[in-house]
Amino acid sequence: MPDSPYLPLYELTRGEIVESIHFGALAVCDANGRLVAWYGDPQAVAYLRSTAKPFQALPFLEQEGKSTFDLTPAEVALICASHSGTDTHVATVLSIQSKTGVREADLLCGVHPPYDEATLEAMRERGEEPSPNRHNCSGKHTGMLAYARLKNWPGEDYIQPSHFVQQSILRAFAEMCDLRPEQVQLGIDGCSAPNFAAPLKSVATAYARLCDPSGLSPGRAAACRTITSAMTLHPEMVAGPGKFDTILMECGQGKIVSKGGAEGYRGIGLLPGALGPSSPALGIALKISDGDPRGRATHAVSLEALRQLGALSADQLESLAEFGPVLPVHNWRKLVVGQARPAFRLQFDGR
Amino acid sequence: MPDSPYLPLYELTRGEIVESIHFGALAVCDANGRLVAWYGDPQAVAYLRSTAKPFQALPFLEQEGKSTFDLTPAEVALICASHSGTDTHVATVLSIQSKTGVREADLLCGVHPPYDEATLEAMRERGEEPSPNRHNCSGKHTGMLAYARLKNWPGEDYIQPSHFVQQSILRAFAEMCDLRPEQVQLGIDGCSAPNFAAPLKSVATAYARLCDPSGLSPGRAAACRTITSAMTLHPEMVAGPGKFDTILMECGQGKIVSKGGAEGYRGIGLLPGALGPSSPALGIALKISDGDPRGRATHAVSLEALRQLGALSADQLESLAEFGPVLPVHNWRKLVVGQARPAFRLQFDGR
Repeated sequence: MPDSPYLPLYELTRGEIVESIHFGALAVCDANGRLVAWYGDPQAVAYLRSTAKPFQALPFLEQEGKSTFDLTPAEVALICASHSGTDTHVATVLSIQSKTGVREADLLCGVHPPYDEATLEAMRERGEEPSPNRHNCSGKHTGMLAYARLKNWPGEDYIQPSHFVQQSILRAFAEMCDLRPEQVQLGIDGCSAPNFAAPLKSVATAYARLCDPSGLSPGRAAACRTITSAMTLHPEMVAGPGKFDTILMECGQGKIVSKGGAEGYRGIGLLPGALGPSSPALGIALKISDGDPRGRATHAVSLEALRQLGALSADQLESLAEFGPVLPVHNWRKLVVGQARPAFRLQFDGR
Repeated sequence: MPDSPYLPLYELTRGEIVESIHFGALAVCDANGRLVAWYGDPQAVAYLRSTAKPFQALPFLEQEGKSTFDLTPAEVALICASHSGTDTHVATVLSIQSKTGVREADLLCGVHPPYDEATLEAMRERGEEPSPNRHNCSGKHTGMLAYARLKNWPGEDYIQPSHFVQQSILRAFAEMCDLRPEQVQLGIDGCSAPNFAAPLKSVATAYARLCDPSGLSPGRAAACRTITSAMTLHPEMVAGPGKFDTILMECGQGKIVSKGGAEGYRGIGLLPGALGPSSPALGIALKISDGDPRGRATHAVSLEALRQLGALSADQLESLAEFGPVLPVHNWRKLVVGQARPAFRLQFDGR
């Protein structure tokens, strides 16, 4: 029997019995790397996918990218985004490109239709084909190219793992995780940039430090504050209309950063004070084992983890209720035939 | 830690590491109910969903429904189908309805757009809204109503669990499984008809008996043969263009019946001789724990189970290669970034 780091995390009932179960694991850490709570194996290793984006923006901002190119918080948020490809998102990407001298044609992210249904429909009506700027990662790729321009590095091969841009990002990410770069496993992301796999515990620590960078160097700490401030000021730039990360950060009122990734990954950062006066920053990293392509588990599990940590008030949970944590299951005639619900209790250190 | 009947069954790599894992379980039985092979807990209980359809057709056929209404094998196959809603499928449903006096308006399955993309596009172009006959279960519901007419039972509430039609179906299904009706758990299906949950081992036994009904009563045995013959003669009626069950049964050349269900369920029957001269019939029941909404695990796992059982030749595996069992994972620029592959070895009785 193979060993697995994953345990039953979210389940769907039909009638009286459980029909389906999503497995997964999650870790909650503070900025010192202390494991505060977990479920499944907190050492489970998985790719962060787009959950890595704030760290992929980090060295560019640490090297004064924002002030050099006079970027706005909305533009910084978009560099950390998996955006929905709306016209507003594209206008913001274009603005970054105009300020930094990056051209859309230089982006190596590929092309996919925008996630936002209304945008897709409007594009269909006017016969517009999607271009790279509609890609959910266009802000990240523009940021990587802007970083190369900032440092006068060649731009052509900016997504090669050996490129200065990627080496710099890898070092920054590893440091945030308390890992050596060679402990971070590399893979090619959906957008062709390098992506990182690391233990959940390490990623939770990195998100906690993003939210409380007081132990980091002044330059990095300032860059972390630039990122969390931009993401919480402009949640609409980080994802898009109706998207979980956007709505969670809106509800979080400056105290929560949230960044989902493909294949059921999510990182959440709780800023100091999110759990009450003088509460420390915490980071959460979670992985739904099966990748959860329809997103029916990741959102609800994220909410349930926040609920069990005491990070959301009754009012906040009410505002987020469309995402769970407990939801009815409907059939084609809209009859309620079952329930989708969390199947985990966080384990807490010392209890 | 909660106990689970499911184990890692199918995995996706990115670079050098496993990124995502689908959990599941499966059972392989012969017509005597002997467990021949398994993975995970063969007693795992899950809803069959559309995998139940051949058994939902069984009592109607046992009661001479086919000869009474002069149904063709293609029409019988459609009564056992989760069809794609093509014009051919709808014409076949209409033919059954015309022969049996059932009206489309009597179907209580609800409405969804047809699964077949080309059909959906053509309907959009001519402004046609989907009607119940396009529903993947319209054949099943027509068969249930035809059964009520055959027996002169009232038709209105034919999907109530207490209705004669449903009670008769439940008894037949339970008998095929070697269970008492009260051991079968009931839930409401996507199409609002009752659905059954049973141990994988019991469902595997039922599929083996469907394929070798020699131990059953003559009437039921004849009905089983009518079903397997109809499904293998008309695989295109059981699912649709490009669909796994259709293509697997085409490749199976009369020796394999296959019926998928929602939430990652599938039943497969191997007819006598499928594994070589004088091999006994076998039934396979499998469940992907997370429900596998994109179908990236169920097809590949089905093929891998058949491969490990020796049920598919190299040529057959080649014809089915688009479904796995090992597939490349591509990104937006069509780069190969990883591999999707089975993560299980069947356990065999006595080895």
